Amino acid sequence: MDERLRRQLDFIVEIDKEKNIFRQTHLSGHGRRENDAEHAWHMAVMAYLLREYANNSVDIARVMLMCLIHDIVEIEAGDTYAYDQEGLKTQKAREDAAKEKLYGMLPRDQGQELTALFDEFEENQTAEARFAHVMDNLQPLLLNDSNGGGDWKEHGVRAEQVYERQNRARGGSDALFQMIDEIIQKHMREGNLK
Amino acid sequence: MDERLRRQLDFIVEIDKEKNIFRQTHLSGHGRRENDAEHAWHMAVMAYLLREYANNSVDIARVMLMCLIHDIVEIEAGDTYAYDQEGLKTQKAREDAAKEKLYGMLPRDQGQELTALFDEFEENQTAEARFAHVMDNLQPLLLNDSNGGGDWKEHGVRAEQVYERQNRARGGSDALFQMIDEIIQKHMREGNLK
Repeated sequence: MDERLRRQLDFIVEIDKEKNIFRQTHLSGHGRRENDAEHAWHMAVMAYLLREYANNSVDIARVMLMCLIHDIVEIEAGDTYAYDQEGLKTQKAREDAAKEKLYGMLPRDQGQELTALFDEFEENQTAEARFAHVMDNLQPLLLNDSNGGGDWKEHGVRAEQVYERQNRARGGSDALFQMIDEIIQKHMREGNLK
Repeated sequence: MDERLRRQLDFIVEIDKEKNIFRQTHLSGHGRRENDAEHAWHMAVMAYLLREYANNSVDIARVMLMCLIHDIVEIEAGDTYAYDQEGLKTQKAREDAAKEKLYGMLPRDQGQELTALFDEFEENQTAEARFAHVMDNLQPLLLNDSNGGGDWKEHGVRAEQVYERQNRARGGSDALFQMIDEIIQKHMREGNLK
């Protein structure tokens, strides 16, 4: 088999492991915890359906691809819960090492392309990256909302922590931020968020 | 909340159930069975990485979206194993009812758009649909190959059944079909396919 195709297939089989990286979020209906591949799939579909709410017009294929690949590094680096202060300190170093190892499996041009797309997501400066971040925050918020705020209660999360996280993506969609704000306010009233 | 956004969010939470529709394929490394959301995520990433092998140039955003949504109907209709002859007889009727119910949750324009995209995938006539079908076949084949053909052995699948399925997607990519053929031949030699 051609060397280029062999590298592509090896990468494709390697990223199967993303299905075993579990997050803190639970599926709707108080199900089991969600994994990174499921989260990425959900984000990409959401991005397509909600693209009309982006503050700036976005290249939706680029946003979807960003959603699909943004957590591949966690195969090596592990998932870092959004409210885990200790984990967040080492997250970048762990993920930088992981991206070199994983994207380095691909043919050089594709490895460089996906690394650049991952970096663009992390730097959060372009319209596409900002909108992808809105999806990254909104997706677990919708599941958590459907479960009565169970994940926040389990971890004793405070409303200000949720706002701090949501605010980082605020530039992506004012319309969705308003809806997110309503959901957070509801959970504060119900005592699910401290 | 705006009625349009409410419908979009209801659909987004509803499709979370796709993560609980399990397929016959096992994850690499003899793991648990794979679910539809994971399969769709994997297909969409693969489509992007392997697009250079499509027989005809494809709108890759359209292919990716087709991959992401093609199994949503299984939330209602259930998964039908590719080699389940009885299940295949009723598959279309079950999936047609499901698509009306599920895509009908969306605002009308988006429901129509996703229904048309699902139908395009099923009819398998466009370059995009054919390439998406190659991914739909190749993805479980790669996992099964990584597991020593375990899924074929478990179900006593015959090589001619695998070829029949793969041939339906042959128009999508001759280059990938050649590689698929090599994998099938290897498993025939090893006795994993009858």
